[in-house]
Amino acid sequence: MKVTLRNATELSVQSVVNRHYEKYIFRRKMTSLNEKLLSTVVEPTSNGKNKVTVVGVGQVGMACAFSILTNNVSNDLVLVDVMADKLKGEMMDLQHGSAFLKNARINASTDYAATANSTLCIVTAGARQREGESRLDLVQRNTDIFKGIIPQLVKYSPNTILLIVSNPVDILTYVAWKLSGLPQNRVIGSGTNLDSTRFRFLLSQKLNVAPTSCHAWVIGEHGDSSVPLWSSVNVAGVRFRDLKPDIGTSKDEEHWGELHKQVVESAYEVIKLKGYTSWAIGLNVSSLAATILRNTYQVHAVTVKLTGHHGITEDVFLSLPSILGENGVTSIVNQILTNEERELLQKSANTIHDIQKNLKL
Amino acid sequence: MKVTLRNATELSVQSVVNRHYEKYIFRRKMTSLNEKLLSTVVEPTSNGKNKVTVVGVGQVGMACAFSILTNNVSNDLVLVDVMADKLKGEMMDLQHGSAFLKNARINASTDYAATANSTLCIVTAGARQREGESRLDLVQRNTDIFKGIIPQLVKYSPNTILLIVSNPVDILTYVAWKLSGLPQNRVIGSGTNLDSTRFRFLLSQKLNVAPTSCHAWVIGEHGDSSVPLWSSVNVAGVRFRDLKPDIGTSKDEEHWGELHKQVVESAYEVIKLKGYTSWAIGLNVSSLAATILRNTYQVHAVTVKLTGHHGITEDVFLSLPSILGENGVTSIVNQILTNEERELLQKSANTIHDIQKNLKL
Amino acid sequence: MKVTLRNATELSVQSVVNRHYEKYIFRRKMTSLNEKLLSTVVEPTSNGKNKVTVVGVGQVGMACAFSILTNNVSNDLVLVDVMADKLKGEMMDLQHGSAFLKNARINASTDYAATANSTLCIVTAGARQREGESRLDLVQRNTDIFKGIIPQLVKYSPNTILLIVSNPVDILTYVAWKLSGLPQNRVIGSGTNLDSTRFRFLLSQKLNVAPTSCHAWVIGEHGDSSVPLWSSVNVAGVRFRDLKPDIGTSKDEEHWGELHKQVVESAYEVIKLKGYTSWAIGLNVSSLAATILRNTYQVHAVTVKLTGHHGITEDVFLSLPSILGENGVTSIVNQILTNEERELLQKSANTIHDIQKNLKL
Amino acid sequence: MKVTLRNATELSVQSVVNRHYEKYIFRRKMTSLNEKLLSTVVEPTSNGKNKVTVVGVGQVGMACAFSILTNNVSNDLVLVDVMADKLKGEMMDLQHGSAFLKNARINASTDYAATANSTLCIVTAGARQREGESRLDLVQRNTDIFKGIIPQLVKYSPNTILLIVSNPVDILTYVAWKLSGLPQNRVIGSGTNLDSTRFRFLLSQKLNVAPTSCHAWVIGEHGDSSVPLWSSVNVAGVRFRDLKPDIGTSKDEEHWGELHKQVVESAYEVIKLKGYTSWAIGLNVSSLAATILRNTYQVHAVTVKLTGHHGITEDVFLSLPSILGENGVTSIVNQILTNEERELLQKSANTIHDIQKNLKL
Repeated sequence: MKVTLRNATELSVQSVVNRHYEKYIFRRKMTSLNEKLLSTVVEPTSNGKNKVTVVGVGQVGMACAFSILTNNVSNDLVLVDVMADKLKGEMMDLQHGSAFLKNARINASTDYAATANSTLCIVTAGARQREGESRLDLVQRNTDIFKGIIPQLVKYSPNTILLIVSNPVDILTYVAWKLSGLPQNRVIGSGTNLDSTRFRFLLSQKLNVAPTSCHAWVIGEHGDSSVPLWSSVNVAGVRFRDLKPDIGTSKDEEHWGELHKQVVESAYEVIKLKGYTSWAIGLNVSSLAATILRNTYQVHAVTVKLTGHHGITEDVFLSLPSILGENGVTSIVNQILTNEERELLQKSANTIHDIQKNLKL
Repeated sequence: MKVTLRNATELSVQSVVNRHYEKYIFRRKMTSLNEKLLSTVVEPTSNGKNKVTVVGVGQVGMACAFSILTNNVSNDLVLVDVMADKLKGEMMDLQHGSAFLKNARINASTDYAATANSTLCIVTAGARQREGESRLDLVQRNTDIFKGIIPQLVKYSPNTILLIVSNPVDILTYVAWKLSGLPQNRVIGSGTNLDSTRFRFLLSQKLNVAPTSCHAWVIGEHGDSSVPLWSSVNVAGVRFRDLKPDIGTSKDEEHWGELHKQVVESAYEVIKLKGYTSWAIGLNVSSLAATILRNTYQVHAVTVKLTGHHGITEDVFLSLPSILGENGVTSIVNQILTNEERELLQKSANTIHDIQKNLKL
Repeated sequence: MKVTLRNATELSVQSVVNRHYEKYIFRRKMTSLNEKLLSTVVEPTSNGKNKVTVVGVGQVGMACAFSILTNNVSNDLVLVDVMADKLKGEMMDLQHGSAFLKNARINASTDYAATANSTLCIVTAGARQREGESRLDLVQRNTDIFKGIIPQLVKYSPNTILLIVSNPVDILTYVAWKLSGLPQNRVIGSGTNLDSTRFRFLLSQKLNVAPTSCHAWVIGEHGDSSVPLWSSVNVAGVRFRDLKPDIGTSKDEEHWGELHKQVVESAYEVIKLKGYTSWAIGLNVSSLAATILRNTYQVHAVTVKLTGHHGITEDVFLSLPSILGENGVTSIVNQILTNEERELLQKSANTIHDIQKNLKL
Repeated sequence: MKVTLRNATELSVQSVVNRHYEKYIFRRKMTSLNEKLLSTVVEPTSNGKNKVTVVGVGQVGMACAFSILTNNVSNDLVLVDVMADKLKGEMMDLQHGSAFLKNARINASTDYAATANSTLCIVTAGARQREGESRLDLVQRNTDIFKGIIPQLVKYSPNTILLIVSNPVDILTYVAWKLSGLPQNRVIGSGTNLDSTRFRFLLSQKLNVAPTSCHAWVIGEHGDSSVPLWSSVNVAGVRFRDLKPDIGTSKDEEHWGELHKQVVESAYEVIKLKGYTSWAIGLNVSSLAATILRNTYQVHAVTVKLTGHHGITEDVFLSLPSILGENGVTSIVNQILTNEERELLQKSANTIHDIQKNLKL
């Protein structure tokens, strides 16, 4: 499964890719039956129009890959990881189900040459926090891991969009932007899309209204300091604040604000209970991938580079509702925040910026 | 909706297309609200990776378009017709439903410039038989119509695949091949895919087994002289001929052969009852489009150029089970026919060739 | 295809249904091949858990039926109409495509016995306005048609939900409620769900944001006096009125209010251009059916019986955002309207009530 | 999450279920906002028409559950396991993604009361082989586990269909049949459906034809002694044996028979590489569930009770191509086997019967 990199660099990228597909496609030359059964009209090829690469085949990476395949977002998927065994096992397991995945093409390699011409590259690889390790140390460690991933992805797919899922996602999206040299619209983090989804689910349970009919946004940092926008929570355009002005504040005797606490604690709780989170993040990433690959301009809360939004002037990446398409981020929605929401957001930006400036890129 | 062709030819194709999309995309420049609501990161574009053009917005064309959209085969569709009113009405009606079509982009124009860079062009336009008109006269009339369509499609989408649905489909696929100058793998007719589907449905009713589990092929001409391959009809690999050697022959006292007669009469009967056929052909075409756009190498009975298959040496197009992908036809399956099946096929080929040689292209 | 009604009433409903299915299912008894091919374990049956009936096979009815099938909302569909020929033609055309509809079961009959045990009955039948005919005359004429439909549906499916699509939909939903004797939660009209969808599409074009990310509601009468709720139009929770206070009013120099005029004119324009509307209403109805059959509690703007909402105390049916499930309407959202919006709604209610009180039921 | 069983047995099943849903549904009573936001028309309920229970939330159970949800086979899912923590974690993780699962309802409980009225119960629970443990010992251990599962499932869902996935699946399907007291048509094992899928994938790679167009069956025991039916392998009805008479035999110099060896080794290899198999079995089970819940009569190779098929007269369960519907197995296809294929099958039956007769049920 390994292609010697020394050779790869001697050849043009396209020829490496062609060689890679040859293995898959021209296998049929091997038998007399093929010639009797089929008369060839033209050699099959692959233009990789909707090719998606997923880096990292842990529980998160595989939930992303499987969601993308079952939701028919792409039918040309490449998995990359350094653990060759696990990687091959996951590839085989998916391939065995390809009849149920609209005959999707599933490939895997430890060599980034296999990812060439990907329209979208999703990065889920990264280290987990060690006991006693500071957050900055973890970020630096993952930054070093990204140094081995991001340039390779961009080398083989110079026109790709990068979708970062690894945590801490906001800083690592900044790191990916720096390492890739790509314009800001083509480097996105999965951000608070998941937090928003969790928030809507919890609202739906309280109201007995479908999650997709509960409109609510969580923005800012994906994690502890995320900001729930209570001021715009609504069902059918009816703002909850117009019915109950103190909703989400500390004065609310019905404690709706607890819902956001549950959002923040959800990740910790699921990890405590089952060891990791996978399904919800996989479905979220699949949804982002669909908007990008189908170029549909839906709004998602994703990590994007801020440029003066809400008074934040540093080079930081945080989640704001953004419009996505085949070019990545085409626009950012200018939400109207309350003073409190704005301050919380700025605080997150400062924390992130403090960590970023000490990173060795 | 019309772009003056004089201008179009003065510009490069891409600039025409860009101009075309501008109308759609840059409309947002017009209001103050847009600027307040959204901060632009990068201008949206459209690369038309899975762009599909449907020529002809009659009942067949619209059933094809709607099936392709609801089945999520493409989310970038262009309709073309000479009847500007009907065309605009169909476009608007589809657009109003786009929220339920995964936000698909639907466009329409009487000008072929709008079709530029289509991956697949589906041609459903054509005249119907007039009373007293000979079949050859009809074919010539549709050939003349195709002279106004095919070169235009190829001009704006030189790398496209042509999928011909207009009838008589076998001869018109030959005509499209001649008029287009495209290699044979990129000119396909919907052929007996529909006849095979109808055959399987009728078998499923007699057996109370799902249509997708009834394996049976109708090949040859799409129409009266189509050939049902009774010798290979099977469920779970159990050939019916092995259980009942006379099945499908005139000796069969249970008259299974009637099923093929019903297949042939189906088109006539549906047209008599409802005025036209639409749903089944639309779903068939959507299925062919999916195999082509997703590059999945499924086998379909479609009209392809024969090159010596089953002893047929003329330049005729007839349906044989073929493997389709993004290159169009990659292979034709060499089926083993009985003498009778082979003779029926050759007879169809002769009839078609006789008509073809008198056509004025 | 006709079952003599005299017999039907002598038998229990279930036995009629069973007899009806027998034709379909036990056909396999007829041949020696079946016995050789299959060893029976248990006789197949149909419990009709997700059975949907569509009354009326015109362009609207068929677009509803086809959308429901392609969207996999139900795989057990019955068509009913008085025109036996057209009905059989549509049934056959759908059946021929069933391999592409996940092997859905499609039936049709002029006899309502075939609809027995439907979970949902969709009524699209009705007369169109004649030249010189008053609106009240049309309503009376359609009321008389409903007298032949609604009691029959309820007779064979006493637990069904009725979804009325025929126009004028608001009054006819009231008529269906009266004729059916069903509780108000089980009688729904498609209402302004389509108007809301059109509004969102037009907004999406101006903003270059996906229709599904443009949140806007049209309520009230489905038709000329529908009320666009500009006060709650938003993207990502950002209310347009907060950015541009005069939006949608006569003072707005950018004339956003034109969008609602276009919504109202859309139906007329599409009918003028193509002769009828079909795709958008079909997709809307399929979406409502999905929420009902899957019991998902999504919010839709549908025609429901008001009980004091927005100061309307008469027995009228108008569209308000409502939560749907397997019981039909479970809740109505109490939107906060501006005085102007409230007055427009009350005016619609009065107009409708004036017509209703003169109807002969 | 626990309901005291002492109470459960005092109440009728339905009231337990209702009580169970109350927690979910009536939570909305708790706040003042609900009353302001929504005016109730009728209380929401759940009839559980397509309710599916998955017992066991290991990698296999969760891949089944996730495939069923993403493929929209059911939107009412209950998970059961004895490990309350893991169970709650998986439930929460799925629930957080429900907006992307068409607002599916996902529940979990250690108490079988939550499974009441399931249409389909999928059993993936069971122990893995210990080092040095004989196969019979493993079977006995899993039989004892099943004693705690099967009667509970049948108690709360007396009309359910049981789909057994735990290994060794053939014997455990027999065990489930015995323990459940259900008729044979309602007890099914996932069997060689997966083996057949793997076989088709491997063929597709050699031929460069889509897996869904490669028709091939593996029958008999799910595992080492499974029987590949080379005599009926075909593409488009062209039997490979007609082109290459020795295919799949030891005489074949092109060694096509290796493909079946790879099928058998696949499970071991994937387990060795990634620790378990999940995606392919999950997709297979989802496909079986779809055929059953949608009542579509597709043919699948599943573990069924033989009654004299291929000369096997003992009470054993083995995989044969079978037609499935809402009643479970309606028919078994009588395949024509070669003598060799028949002998291999009988040998499997004997091995299985030898183990079965020593089981303590």
